[in-house]
Order: sequence, then C-alpha cells, then structure tokens
Amino acid sequence: MDYSNFISLLLKGNPRAAARLITFAENDIAAAEKIINSIYEHTGNAYILGITGAPGTGKSTFISTLTKSYIAQGKKIGIICVDPTSPLTGGALLGDRIRMKQNFSVNNVFIRSMANREQLGGLARATEDVIKILDAYGCDIIIVETVGVGQSEVDIFKSAQTVVVLLVPGLGDDIQAIKSGIMEITDVFVVNKMDLAGADKKIAEIKQMLEFRKNYKYDSNEIHKKYAKIELWTPEITKVNSKTGENFDEFLELIKKHELFLKESGVITNYMKNRITNETLQILKHKLTEKVENLLNSDKEIGKYIDQAIQKSLDPYSMANLIIKMLGLEKE
Amino acid sequence: MDYSNFISLLLKGNPRAAARLITFAENDIAAAEKIINSIYEHTGNAYILGITGAPGTGKSTFISTLTKSYIAQGKKIGIICVDPTSPLTGGALLGDRIRMKQNFSVNNVFIRSMANREQLGGLARATEDVIKILDAYGCDIIIVETVGVGQSEVDIFKSAQTVVVLLVPGLGDDIQAIKSGIMEITDVFVVNKMDLAGADKKIAEIKQMLEFRKNYKYDSNEIHKKYAKIELWTPEITKVNSKTGENFDEFLELIKKHELFLKESGVITNYMKNRITNETLQILKHKLTEKVENLLNSDKEIGKYIDQAIQKSLDPYSMANLIIKMLGLEKE
Repeated sequence: MDYSNFISLLLKGNPRAAARLITFAENDIAAAEKIINSIYEHTGNAYILGITGAPGTGKSTFISTLTKSYIAQGKKIGIICVDPTSPLTGGALLGDRIRMKQNFSVNNVFIRSMANREQLGGLARATEDVIKILDAYGCDIIIVETVGVGQSEVDIFKSAQTVVVLLVPGLGDDIQAIKSGIMEITDVFVVNKMDLAGADKKIAEIKQMLEFRKNYKYDSNEIHKKYAKIELWTPEITKVNSKTGENFDEFLELIKKHELFLKESGVITNYMKNRITNETLQILKHKLTEKVENLLNSDKEIGKYIDQAIQKSLDPYSMANLIIKMLGLEKE
Repeated sequence: MDYSNFISLLLKGNPRAAARLITFAENDIAAAEKIINSIYEHTGNAYILGITGAPGTGKSTFISTLTKSYIAQGKKIGIICVDPTSPLTGGALLGDRIRMKQNFSVNNVFIRSMANREQLGGLARATEDVIKILDAYGCDIIIVETVGVGQSEVDIFKSAQTVVVLLVPGLGDDIQAIKSGIMEITDVFVVNKMDLAGADKKIAEIKQMLEFRKNYKYDSNEIHKKYAKIELWTPEITKVNSKTGENFDEFLELIKKHELFLKESGVITNYMKNRITNETLQILKHKLTEKVENLLNSDKEIGKYIDQAIQKSLDPYSMANLIIKMLGLEKE
C-alpha cells in the first residue's frame, strides 16, 4: 500500500490522516516500517512528557489541567493513553464524561488510546511509532500516560525527555505500586490533590526515598550509562491541585527547568542515543521473535525437541540453546 | 554456584529452599537455567490456575477462600502474585492485613509476590520459572494471580491449564479493563460479590459477549492453533460470594470439569506443546535481546548508525534491518 497521500496530509496537520496512519502502523508492523521510514526526517520537534501514577492519583484530571495550560500557551498537544483503566477522554477535556474513542481530536489536542489492544511487536514499539506520527503531525508536546506498573512501561519511558510521577497524600501504596525502574528515571514528582491532609508528609516521604537512592551505589554499568542524568539531576518535587489548577505554574516551571538542564548539561545527546538504541532494540526484538516463532512452529527438528520437552528429557533452556545454535548465533 | 543442596531440600518440600531458589532464579538468568535444568524432570504434577480480575473485583478475598477450600481437601497450594497492586498477603489468609512479604509460607501455602521487581528476561519468563520451582516443591495447585491488563500477562496465562476471570456486578468497566487477549483464553468466568444487585445482569452480559465471540471468525491460523480449545470448550459462567464462600462448590466443580475436558478431548497435549513453545520463546527472546543489546552498546559500526539516526538520515527500522544483516540472519 502507498501511504504517501496520508503522509503529505499528516505533514500539513490533518488529524484524520494522523488517525489513519496510527491505525495502519499499529495493525501491521510492515506498514509501520514504511510510514516511519517516510516521516522520520520530520520528527524530533516534539517534547515528550511521560506521566504516570497509580489508579486513584488523579492522572486524568491532572493531564486535563496540564493540557489546558499548554493550549493557552498556543501549543499543540498529543496525548497517548497507555493506561488501560484510564478514564481520560476527549469528553473529560470538554468537561463531560463520554467514554473515550480510540482517537479524539479537537482544539489542538489529539488523543490516542493504546489500551486494550494487542500491539504487534509490543507496546513500547507501538507507542514509539505513535509518538513519531504525532511528532510529524506537528505536536509541540506529546504526553504519554501510563499506569506505571507494567514491564513494558519502563521501556516506553525511555522515549520521554521528562518523566513525571504523580502521587497523592496517603498511605504510600502509590509509591509501592509504581514499578521501581520508573522511580529511577523520574525527573519530577508531583503530589496531586494537595488540598488533602498529608501532602507535605508525602513530599517528605519522597525526599526520604530520594535520599536513600542517592546513597545507593549502582553496581551495574548499564544503569550508569543509561541513566546518566541520575547523577546530574536531582528530581524535583512539587504539589498541585489539578481541580483548581493551584500551583500548576510552578510545575510548568519545573518542566522547563528540566528541559533546560537536558540541553545545557549535554544529557540530551545521551537521551537521544538511548532512545534510538531502545527503539531499534524493540524493533529487533519483534523481528527476531517473529523469526524464532516461525521456526518453532514449522521446523521438524524443533518439533522433536518439543516432544522431548513434554517427556521431560529436555528443558526449555536447553532447547533455547539448541535453537540459538541452529540459527548460527552461538558465538560472539 | 552449586544449587544441589537447595534442590535436594526443595524436592523434600522445604519452603526456605524454595524461597532461596526462586530468588536465585529471579535475579540471575544463568542461575535460573541451572536450576530449571536440574528440577525439570520433577515438574509437571501441579495444576496451574490463572486468575485475573481488574482492581476492585475482590481477587484477594476470592483467592483466600479458594485456597482455604483446597487446603481443606489436603492440597498443597502455591500462589504467585503478579498483580502489583495486590493486597493479597500471608496476613490476609490468616485473617489480618499485614503487608505481604516477598515470600510467605504457612500451612501448606506458599505465596510469592512477583510485583514491583524488574524481572530479567521478562515477567513471563520469571513467572514460568517460579511455577516450575513450586511444582518441584510439591504444590498440587499453583494459582497465578494477575491484574489482567498488561502485555506480558497474556504470555503468562499460556502456562495455565485453566484461566479464570473475575468480574463484579456493575457497569462493565471490569470487562473493558481486561486485556482482550485474555478474554479469548478464559475458561471460567466468575461473577464475584453475587450478593450485590446486578449479578445476574452481569452473567447475561458475559453470555452476550461470548455469543459475539462464537460468531467471530478468527482469520488467523495462529489463534486457531494456539487456542484450539476455543472451538471445543464453551466458557463456563458462575457467581460466588467470596466472603461467605457461597457457591464455591459449584466453582470448584467447574474447574474439575475443565480439567477433565482437557484430558478427555486431548487438548492437554496441545496445551503442553504451546506452553513449552511459549517458554522457549520467552527464553530465546531474552537471550537474543542480550546479544543484540551488547552489540548495540559496543559495536563501532552501530555507533555510526546511531549517529546517523540522530541526524535523521537513518530511521530505527532501517537500522534494525542492517543489524539483522550483520548477525547473518537476513535470510529465511
């Protein structure tokens, strides 16, 4: 299929073209490859904000308020909802509660739900493609909303320049619910619902957690390389009231401060390298998995291995090693 | 390291050995490989139940009641909590609310939380290893509890003989929250909190959904092969009250009925093949990802590609193709 018409419309800011291209890319990785190939040179202008928080932390109200602030600044916003329980809807932005459609676009806001779909090649791969399409579409800010508890969400957040974690005054369950890998790459902590009792206590808890982290010696080179900013950026903490908009100015300042830090420290280069490495890795994972799946389902030799495994004379790890040998990958 | 002492203790049913081996396997995939290699011939005796439900469906009370029923039958139970928001605790089983420890073992119950940890090689791989260790440890029933919304949970459920989805009377948000891939492999639907108004309406909704599914023509061979049971088994629906234990007898009968069906229809062979294929695939994914990650981080040629990608002259899909060529995998 030829996507060039859709792509030229996309580059002119046509929301329906954006919606169609996203659907093509999600449903068919070969289509995604063609589309990204064509639009890649037009990407790289959007600022990507990863926003996460456990259910109950008020993510959708927070994002609605944030989006309105950005719109007031004349910005064009893309929102990608990865959280399957997200009640965030076009309706929510307009003040009602219509259930979200897959795509929703109005007044410089484009919302896309990635929830409850099986993404070929994984959620991180699919989300990255949607980010690129919205970037080429002309979004200034792309908000990626996740629930922060899944395995693939850490990978998703490698695409974000700034990672924001939302917490609420209370028992600390929200801190525990967030995947530890995400905590380590969080740039700004926001205590939402600051009108509730315990907001300052929550801030103190976050500080304590960060203090602990500061003293923690990462023994893995991996983390040092990937999260270079850990040592250069001390995560900011603030509190807001998303319903009234109280303190959002300060929050927006912190985002700007972090954006500036990335540029001035040179960490942005590191970020770009990591992002590209991660994207390529996600794509390779999919392509290699496809190859191996085909092999597992068709090769006669492997059929024998499976029978041996059923009879308990070959375990899956040993079988995996035999297949790596078959593929000619045993060395290196 | 030599795990043989732990393994011989494990095979004698020592819970501390089980806990240690699980930790070793989770933290180090090379250790997992050695351990699974040694215990594999002692696995295959446990019946694996996948239980999922959105937050608020009462999963932990349900699982507590279920566990007590099985204990009363003299069974030994393993529980693996994948749901990071799970309040299921050793304490819950004993009637209080102590926060769950990573491992908890008492009265023929062994609980392991997989939540909030970064599992090397993915959650599905790690969960499968824990299942095998608890199987060799002597568990008759292994319950795998997930929240049912994540990408990797569909893979996790490929290990379960019987998949149970918990719903509650109400608005239907719980149906929407469950990942579609899971709905397709569900064997028993349970409407929990049957004392609430609307339990029968919820049953009618599930029936309607299944009716829709029956008429749906799966166009992919994949699904036909993997989920052969879709065409042979009509999912059962029941309602229970987990707090009082009302109707649990019927639920237990349905599990038995499904177990019998798997054996008598021969679908169990299909299940075993799929499970082994999936396990091997998860391991291969990890091993190949490791290889590719090393390559991405060390190879000079690839360093050049990354620079080109930053300059927007090479997109990640094209880069992935170049790497596949480098690995000698371009054909097939």
